[in-house]
Amino acid sequence: MSTPLRVGIAGLGTVGATTFQLLSEHAALVAARAGRPIQVAAVSARDRTRNRGIDLSESRWYDAPKALTEDPEIDAVVELIGGADGIAQELCEQAIAHGKHVVTANKALIAHHGTALATAAEAAGVALGFEAAVAGGIPIVKALREGLAANAIQRVYGILNGTCNYILSAMDHAVSEGKESDFAATLAEAQRLGYAEADPSFDVDGIDTAHKLAILTGLAFGCPLDFAAVHIEGIRAINGVDIGFARELGYKIKLLGIAGLTEGGVEQRVHPSMVPLANPIAHVDGVFNAVVAHGDHVDRALFEGRGAGGGPTASAVVADLIDIARGLRPPSFSIPAAELSRLATVPIEKRRGAYYIRLMVLDRPGVIADVTACLRDHQVSMEAMLQRARAPGEAVPVVMTTHETVEASMRHALTQIAALDSVLEPPHMIRIEHL
Amino acid sequence: MSTPLRVGIAGLGTVGATTFQLLSEHAALVAARAGRPIQVAAVSARDRTRNRGIDLSESRWYDAPKALTEDPEIDAVVELIGGADGIAQELCEQAIAHGKHVVTANKALIAHHGTALATAAEAAGVALGFEAAVAGGIPIVKALREGLAANAIQRVYGILNGTCNYILSAMDHAVSEGKESDFAATLAEAQRLGYAEADPSFDVDGIDTAHKLAILTGLAFGCPLDFAAVHIEGIRAINGVDIGFARELGYKIKLLGIAGLTEGGVEQRVHPSMVPLANPIAHVDGVFNAVVAHGDHVDRALFEGRGAGGGPTASAVVADLIDIARGLRPPSFSIPAAELSRLATVPIEKRRGAYYIRLMVLDRPGVIADVTACLRDHQVSMEAMLQRARAPGEAVPVVMTTHETVEASMRHALTQIAALDSVLEPPHMIRIEHL
Repeated sequence: MSTPLRVGIAGLGTVGATTFQLLSEHAALVAARAGRPIQVAAVSARDRTRNRGIDLSESRWYDAPKALTEDPEIDAVVELIGGADGIAQELCEQAIAHGKHVVTANKALIAHHGTALATAAEAAGVALGFEAAVAGGIPIVKALREGLAANAIQRVYGILNGTCNYILSAMDHAVSEGKESDFAATLAEAQRLGYAEADPSFDVDGIDTAHKLAILTGLAFGCPLDFAAVHIEGIRAINGVDIGFARELGYKIKLLGIAGLTEGGVEQRVHPSMVPLANPIAHVDGVFNAVVAHGDHVDRALFEGRGAGGGPTASAVVADLIDIARGLRPPSFSIPAAELSRLATVPIEKRRGAYYIRLMVLDRPGVIADVTACLRDHQVSMEAMLQRARAPGEAVPVVMTTHETVEASMRHALTQIAALDSVLEPPHMIRIEHL
Repeated sequence: MSTPLRVGIAGLGTVGATTFQLLSEHAALVAARAGRPIQVAAVSARDRTRNRGIDLSESRWYDAPKALTEDPEIDAVVELIGGADGIAQELCEQAIAHGKHVVTANKALIAHHGTALATAAEAAGVALGFEAAVAGGIPIVKALREGLAANAIQRVYGILNGTCNYILSAMDHAVSEGKESDFAATLAEAQRLGYAEADPSFDVDGIDTAHKLAILTGLAFGCPLDFAAVHIEGIRAINGVDIGFARELGYKIKLLGIAGLTEGGVEQRVHPSMVPLANPIAHVDGVFNAVVAHGDHVDRALFEGRGAGGGPTASAVVADLIDIARGLRPPSFSIPAAELSRLATVPIEKRRGAYYIRLMVLDRPGVIADVTACLRDHQVSMEAMLQRARAPGEAVPVVMTTHETVEASMRHALTQIAALDSVLEPPHMIRIEHL
């Protein structure tokens, strides 16, 4: 068997240690599939003495990750440090500059600097692999770049964050059992179980989903990555009451990242969405992720798997290394990075679609007439209305769904509705997605 | 842009014509992704005069498909003729012998001759692509060969035939609405709608599923393809009564192809299966296909999409051509064909699992005692029993599910049960799959 591919791993947290272990345990399998052995020649991490349950004695140790880029006996650098900029970015840039392949699981880095890194890598004739950056257990980067390459992709969307999906699934489950459910308590429980971080904001505020969506957008539509253009809303405002109404109306509430080509350009948005139960993604629960791509020839293709964790992420990192060892080097974003062409951004105000609205109103005559007048004023057409409890003089929920309308009209109508005397809380709005 | 990849297409049925059209309509997109144009230099089909809605004026025409293999200005031959042997096999062999890449959608050919063809292609330094042979709209060949290449695959299974899934879904739908449902009528309706062929046996008898399963088995476990080792049962014996009981017990009946590594070797089986509703594959309905792979690092990964039809199949054919144009040439079965190593075959008699049994018995005292004695004699342990209608002296259904047991024991018990006086029909047995 020919020369080994010599790898340097920067960062030995869960993913780094699992990658190290996978390459050692599956050395024969990996070598058979890669056509040559893949060796961890060197590693770099913060603390050399920490027990990670792996035997580092055969690999060189560097305190400074950037030393990996200068080691002439390393062919590929695996960046598992994290962070959108700083040391991770410098490491990848330097590795490319030194003619080394780069594999990374860092979605923030790729979302912000992916186009520049891919351009540099292609100029240097090295690979930039980031399968692990989007839904580790799902080979979706490869699927969009290669498997579906014959298609004009019209739409790609998915459940891209396991923490949010765990929380929403747990809340849905509680509601299905007739229990009260609220976001804060479910988040706390998820944190206790290790499904959410101590500081959960990257996950629950939708940033992590947006990073992944920006990457999928570039892959699907051949445009430079534009994280700043992603409209982002998280799941903190979701509560059991809306989940209950969603169930009644035949929907599940999921945090979706959605990217699509419309006449006006490309839209990228992350927000809680009501998904009809007929869409298979509505049934993807717990920590599982799923991505759906619509291509003009394949129609709908769905990919579901674990999005995070040591095993799935290491699997994606090593798949990229196997491709590199095999000599496979397609352009990172399906077409050469220098040829990615900017598309107009469709702002969220131009979204066309249906809406779910819940108002807490004072149960007195004329309220509904006032509300529907606001909708009419902005050409928003109501599809259905639910008003369950009757409690004259008290607060009751009024739920409405609309026909397809434009977000800007919906927002204007909601501003007017919110100003009505009998409307007691800011309106709850969730977009309905017939994808 | 560099030299085009020059393609010769043999067979211009739906898939051939759609492939031709895709390459023409998406010429720019395909060239951008492939790094160079892909041109249909020549075609071959039976009838030159037939109107296929495509403009053949720029491509050379050959009456004999094998002429494509001798055309020095063709780099890759696309075989879309079909059939396990004969002209399709000769065409692929000759193309390889002439140093041309081969792409085929022919599952029968690959299931029977895939190992030999891959060996020849690798010796000749050309590619053998067959993404289109398994679930066209799902890039599962690439996923197993590349995306999940870091994993030891433990199990791969799926819904691999759209005709069967359409029929079973239609029957299930009828039962869910309280209607009678039987196989023959549903098949006839599927034929009327174009979802089943005039001669449906390849589909409904499980052969087509078995072809695809044999290919997935080779890819997943690195063994030579062994179609003869696949245990095959079709769906003709499925009826509305069993579908109704399945629903009641929390299962869907699906025709699954299942391949797994066990202590004794590799098992490959195709048969109607009761799938728990908690398994996402239970919800894959209509003509959609789905494949689930369990890897030791990714855990469960599910891929769902359209399995057949011009668009999805052409998408897969062209994806293979783009890989070839890009110069990507991993071994067809993940490891070099010469290194595929034979694994012992686990016969169906050694299957371990649970069973659903329905008996039509004469409703009289002692029947259940007789039946359960047969089970006890063969160490089959009952999990649950349903006996709904009471009609003394008449035929009533008795439904049982068993705990995990070995197929051979189950079969012996059923033979004994079938011989009981009070058992009026051969027992209906469906395997329960907790995958």
